[in-house]
Amino acid sequence: MFQKIEHIGIAVKSLESAIPKYEQLLGTSCYKTETVETEGVHTAFFKVGESKIELLASVSEDGVIARYIEKKGEGIHHIAYAVEDIHSEMNRLKDEGFILLSEEPKPGADQKWVCFVHPKSTGGVLVELCMDRDE
Amino acid sequence: MFQKIEHIGIAVKSLESAIPKYEQLLGTSCYKTETVETEGVHTAFFKVGESKIELLASVSEDGVIARYIEKKGEGIHHIAYAVEDIHSEMNRLKDEGFILLSEEPKPGADQKWVCFVHPKSTGGVLVELCMDRDE
Repeated sequence: MFQKIEHIGIAVKSLESAIPKYEQLLGTSCYKTETVETEGVHTAFFKVGESKIELLASVSEDGVIARYIEKKGEGIHHIAYAVEDIHSEMNRLKDEGFILLSEEPKPGADQKWVCFVHPKSTGGVLVELCMDRDE
Repeated sequence: MFQKIEHIGIAVKSLESAIPKYEQLLGTSCYKTETVETEGVHTAFFKVGESKIELLASVSEDGVIARYIEKKGEGIHHIAYAVEDIHSEMNRLKDEGFILLSEEPKPGADQKWVCFVHPKSTGGVLVELCMDRDE
């Protein structure tokens, strides 16, 4: 079972122009930026209630977010749900027939272990599972 | 300022096939379905933490959700934020240069007053403001 919406990931061309726009829209300041080299993304975070908005900009011109924007334009990229035990949720979803994009959880932004679920198996929505990572 | 993510709206072809899939994915049961004739949508709701997932299926073959799916496929349609005072938030956003899709709040699903913000002004994301409607 999912505990809450951890964040909504939004693909943007550039953090420099998107951050001030989202600060205006949400009425709150960006509290953190972080580059996740393994995923090829620059990220920026905003708090909204118990959830976050995560802006995603590509590090390189052929990164996954750059290719997403080329195909679909800027917009909502994925929904991330917080889970207590990522391994048991991965097993549960696999048993239900959902397609996981990695066999094991991977380190994600904002001190999380993450695993993505293929949009083909979820009705067109890229889903991310997130569990807090203690380090 | 936005209080929380009220819901994420997801466009689906049919509630009959999408509801059981989302019950499996989220690990929770659909707690309500509702048809909003004025918007031409059948809706189904699931609770996740303080937020909801709202599935949206078109009432008619040429409804707004049917046309969305034809163009973009099934997937995330909009993000709805809860606000305490929808009129003051509408004025704030208008002053910031965001484009509102109605001059006044409209009655939406799940006992809300709602107003949409044009994706052209938000970097490709259809945004909905929601305020509880007392009746």
